Amino acid sequence: MRFFSDNAAPVHPAVFAAMAGADRVDTAYDGDALSRGLDARFSDLFGREVAALWVPTGTAANALALAALCPPYGGVICHRDSHIQNDECGAPEFYTHGAKLILGEGVGAKLTPGEAVRVADAIANDVHRVQPHALSITNATEYGCVYTPGEVAALGALARQRGWGFHMDGARFANAIVTLGCTPAELTCDAGVDVLSFGFVKNGGLSAEALIFFDKKLVDATARRRKRAGHLLSKGRYLAAQVHAMLDDDLWLQTARAANDAARTLAAAAGNRLINPVEANELFLHMTAEEAARLRAQGFDFYDWAAGEIRLVTHWASPAGEVTALAQAIAAL
Amino acid sequence: MRFFSDNAAPVHPAVFAAMAGADRVDTAYDGDALSRGLDARFSDLFGREVAALWVPTGTAANALALAALCPPYGGVICHRDSHIQNDECGAPEFYTHGAKLILGEGVGAKLTPGEAVRVADAIANDVHRVQPHALSITNATEYGCVYTPGEVAALGALARQRGWGFHMDGARFANAIVTLGCTPAELTCDAGVDVLSFGFVKNGGLSAEALIFFDKKLVDATARRRKRAGHLLSKGRYLAAQVHAMLDDDLWLQTARAANDAARTLAAAAGNRLINPVEANELFLHMTAEEAARLRAQGFDFYDWAAGEIRLVTHWASPAGEVTALAQAIAAL
Amino acid sequence: MRFFSDNAAPVHPAVFAAMAGADRVDTAYDGDALSRGLDARFSDLFGREVAALWVPTGTAANALALAALCPPYGGVICHRDSHIQNDECGAPEFYTHGAKLILGEGVGAKLTPGEAVRVADAIANDVHRVQPHALSITNATEYGCVYTPGEVAALGALARQRGWGFHMDGARFANAIVTLGCTPAELTCDAGVDVLSFGFVKNGGLSAEALIFFDKKLVDATARRRKRAGHLLSKGRYLAAQVHAMLDDDLWLQTARAANDAARTLAAAAGNRLINPVEANELFLHMTAEEAARLRAQGFDFYDWAAGEIRLVTHWASPAGEVTALAQAIAAL
Amino acid sequence: MRFFSDNAAPVHPAVFAAMAGADRVDTAYDGDALSRGLDARFSDLFGREVAALWVPTGTAANALALAALCPPYGGVICHRDSHIQNDECGAPEFYTHGAKLILGEGVGAKLTPGEAVRVADAIANDVHRVQPHALSITNATEYGCVYTPGEVAALGALARQRGWGFHMDGARFANAIVTLGCTPAELTCDAGVDVLSFGFVKNGGLSAEALIFFDKKLVDATARRRKRAGHLLSKGRYLAAQVHAMLDDDLWLQTARAANDAARTLAAAAGNRLINPVEANELFLHMTAEEAARLRAQGFDFYDWAAGEIRLVTHWASPAGEVTALAQAIAAL
Repeated sequence: MRFFSDNAAPVHPAVFAAMAGADRVDTAYDGDALSRGLDARFSDLFGREVAALWVPTGTAANALALAALCPPYGGVICHRDSHIQNDECGAPEFYTHGAKLILGEGVGAKLTPGEAVRVADAIANDVHRVQPHALSITNATEYGCVYTPGEVAALGALARQRGWGFHMDGARFANAIVTLGCTPAELTCDAGVDVLSFGFVKNGGLSAEALIFFDKKLVDATARRRKRAGHLLSKGRYLAAQVHAMLDDDLWLQTARAANDAARTLAAAAGNRLINPVEANELFLHMTAEEAARLRAQGFDFYDWAAGEIRLVTHWASPAGEVTALAQAIAAL
Repeated sequence: MRFFSDNAAPVHPAVFAAMAGADRVDTAYDGDALSRGLDARFSDLFGREVAALWVPTGTAANALALAALCPPYGGVICHRDSHIQNDECGAPEFYTHGAKLILGEGVGAKLTPGEAVRVADAIANDVHRVQPHALSITNATEYGCVYTPGEVAALGALARQRGWGFHMDGARFANAIVTLGCTPAELTCDAGVDVLSFGFVKNGGLSAEALIFFDKKLVDATARRRKRAGHLLSKGRYLAAQVHAMLDDDLWLQTARAANDAARTLAAAAGNRLINPVEANELFLHMTAEEAARLRAQGFDFYDWAAGEIRLVTHWASPAGEVTALAQAIAAL
Repeated sequence: MRFFSDNAAPVHPAVFAAMAGADRVDTAYDGDALSRGLDARFSDLFGREVAALWVPTGTAANALALAALCPPYGGVICHRDSHIQNDECGAPEFYTHGAKLILGEGVGAKLTPGEAVRVADAIANDVHRVQPHALSITNATEYGCVYTPGEVAALGALARQRGWGFHMDGARFANAIVTLGCTPAELTCDAGVDVLSFGFVKNGGLSAEALIFFDKKLVDATARRRKRAGHLLSKGRYLAAQVHAMLDDDLWLQTARAANDAARTLAAAAGNRLINPVEANELFLHMTAEEAARLRAQGFDFYDWAAGEIRLVTHWASPAGEVTALAQAIAAL
Repeated sequence: MRFFSDNAAPVHPAVFAAMAGADRVDTAYDGDALSRGLDARFSDLFGREVAALWVPTGTAANALALAALCPPYGGVICHRDSHIQNDECGAPEFYTHGAKLILGEGVGAKLTPGEAVRVADAIANDVHRVQPHALSITNATEYGCVYTPGEVAALGALARQRGWGFHMDGARFANAIVTLGCTPAELTCDAGVDVLSFGFVKNGGLSAEALIFFDKKLVDATARRRKRAGHLLSKGRYLAAQVHAMLDDDLWLQTARAANDAARTLAAAAGNRLINPVEANELFLHMTAEEAARLRAQGFDFYDWAAGEIRLVTHWASPAGEVTALAQAIAAL
């Protein structure tokens, strides 16, 4: 019974079916109808004209987004615990050609406008210091918390005022939307976001994320960077098919809802052990090594986060029986 | 009836089946058994211990290979018409951090040792000039020709003598092996190749190529570069499954043989129109614009290569009827 | 008697005197009055508002200029025999983060608009091919020839039409101006040049070149790249002083005239041996190895260029007696 | 009366004289006898065979050193307040092609082995995290403190044990040596340092620092990177001459001693205002804005460091009268 990661989840049958449906001789790269249809598909979803590129990983999406927003001699303000800082082996530095990540603090891996101002204003505005050019947040965050549309908008207003590009890492965007009950636009473009990494792989997809540009001027250079990075798959139609399948009938919201519901079930059992509010599909719990060992002895696998802390992740296909069993086991500790 | 590209081909059913077979909760990234099994699988195939990494594109494979073999201040000798020079939007320069491609000439997009020596020896050995650090060839070449094991070995001996790394772009490696009737080892490690981009996508795969290191010391840095480039897919088991499926029962040789056979059928019809010998699944034909238009009017699609030249590409699933029809149409021009 | 290189020349006494004149406690980096005065100084010279940055080498000037004009995924059209291609160990690739140099041909290391169009139009406009973003020429060229204002303007018009940035490597800009008798503006900004590497080191300076931006929007990013590259010297006033000294009383034209005159004296003696017209301070001569040995036996040092060719370079301080002696020795061969 | 920076100091007359002494036609780049003599000169100084390259700035020296020790996908452990992190506009990221600086804490801008271990061990050893490959310290530090030979050796032993390269930013190396009374070797190679940025510009030089390789295998690649970065000056002999002049008769120690002595005079007057021990030529003082204004009203210029803090820097040529006057003025506050 694995609660390690939503990356460990299987692929949704509808995604497989869509890939099979795309299985014919067709135009290579992104010249096929499915790939060419993504702009319209996401423009519908966001209620405005956007440009969309598929890429195979969230790391590629994030790094391409940052390269579009920040020059090599610039910096990106982000949270100290963000995925781009800790979990991408320097992909932002690689794609931006050496831009600096400028680190802020905040509960639940969330930045506030005040914190962003604090770190920015500590940097003298001269050629000796790397200047901030972009702001990047993760929603839902690496600690399973969400930024509300209002919180995003406050950061977006700051970014606009300072002339920073604004990126949202939405590896778990669906989980945030489900929790907040808002529209995708309210959480992004309406709030000043320029580029969104729209995640599907953790949510039922196989190998397709979408990079959404609310500022369409950025897309041409990014399409070239995508090719240059080796992310323009020659049989791209199978990636586009995955994205379409996830959007059909709001499948992406259904799968995220299932993951969130499972997390809420566990959260209810965890009670005071919770380190952060559970607003998506990740839970961080206080737990002694001995307690963790007892859970493992019952067949539950999960990640040791820090000393005395564990991480549990649910996903769209977390078996209800396993979730219930884990909830009971935690409650019984 | 499309003869544009083997990238346009569908995915082999066995590949789809293998992906479906991998569809369960499993360890993320490349921690699953299928991914971990690739080293052994390819070590069997090559008859020596090798290290293997999956990546989603040939461009990623090539660029990672070159980054493993050439420092930023070095150069890579390759053919003027090579894929790495012309068709990857500067991926080698991106991954190597600015190494130079040093261009040679040769019939059929093939380099000879003499030509490699000529371009290398034209470069004064001082700090003002970028020095060659690696040699890269494509087999089968971009013009559908093959290097024999002996030809590769001659280049390999030169590379060894000069201290250059030696890379083979094997996007159509299978087509070369089928034509030559040699073993994979004879065409690579036995001939001095250090890193091979072993292509599957043009040959029935969906989104998995294998990067093969005959020098295992190079793999650790490359695994980090792969992550850093966003090519470590979180559901990597579905890529590993594709590779295993292609190797099972020599499927990769069967599919390549089908493509080559189709190409030979067309070649027989093309006769004097052929610009290069047809040794894989690509044909380049002399053809007037008017003749090309007549073929298109009969429903055949293909690529205009240069003035008075067209390119035809066959693939594992080229319908026999379409191949025969095209052969007859060419003969009837 | 050395005719190797103008880099071997001593420093003009006025340059040394100006450095001594700047020798006091002063503001570091480029905050001193001399550095801050360069914009006005060059604006006067060019008759329009320009921005000027000192840098210690021509390679730094060229590479920073190209980074200002070409993105990492772009290309720079230049001559196959240009300094940026052959003599900077990949500095353009380093500073641009991997842009490609796109090579053209032409007599005397000169590009024509027709040649630039030829190489550009051979590149399909898709994401697979690196697209040209800039054009770079050297004036006087690496073969001691000059582009006239009209020739530069024709290239400038093409650059404007195609949306390319236009850079001039003016390591020997002074020699070209003296030969052409035109104004600095006529040869650059009036002719569409965006950025000029204005050389002083080969012409009497010690360690200061000027990077001139006719498009002032480019200067802010370049000032940051200059710092990031380690080219913002902390005692920059000593570099600014050199540049001011070279501009005072048109010293830069006097020194270039001396070098050109010496070259003309040698050219007259060389007659039919000349490979290119002598329009600056470099001469390329047909000469057998035996003849070259005879010159060397008489105490003349110079560079063997290619088989049967030598290069002679004069400079502002070439001793008249040595020049005459060499001229006679060549005539006597 | 300026106490802003040692970069503001004039050039020592002996340095100017040495440059004048090098003023003749000579071999370009670093082919002259002065440049070629640096290896032997520094080998004498350090009592072992070392390789030495001149570069025009400390930023270039540091960034080239880090590029020699850390791959693009690696990290460099350094202090949060180090020059490489805060004052080089991302030069380390540029030269290393995107390596990460991994930041530690410590009083006086000094790292301890314990702190280096703490930050290193917080990084999981997998491909998702950037792994440390090098350690960089500044001696004397950015806060005017020194590491003793024993402290350096403890860090050196850790670096060896972990397989990290070890760099010392010695922009004020001379000031440290004078304070410690040890030999240059005791503070560097004997203590495990691999590469030293040996500063001269802040200490009486004009535009020459020396990059010292105790591991000579690193020098060939660095010589190429130096050229590629535009730091191989064509008239390099004038840089080599500066370095020789600074080493002649231990001038570098005399000038550093003068600067340190001036700082000690100020330190005695500052008493309890001192934030750090004064072990080189920089002082950081508690001072209210009103007090600072009173000093400025008396003609003293200096840098406001943080709220309620100022920085004073002395140099080799700080006029004794000005130093005494400032000491009295501080005492009288």
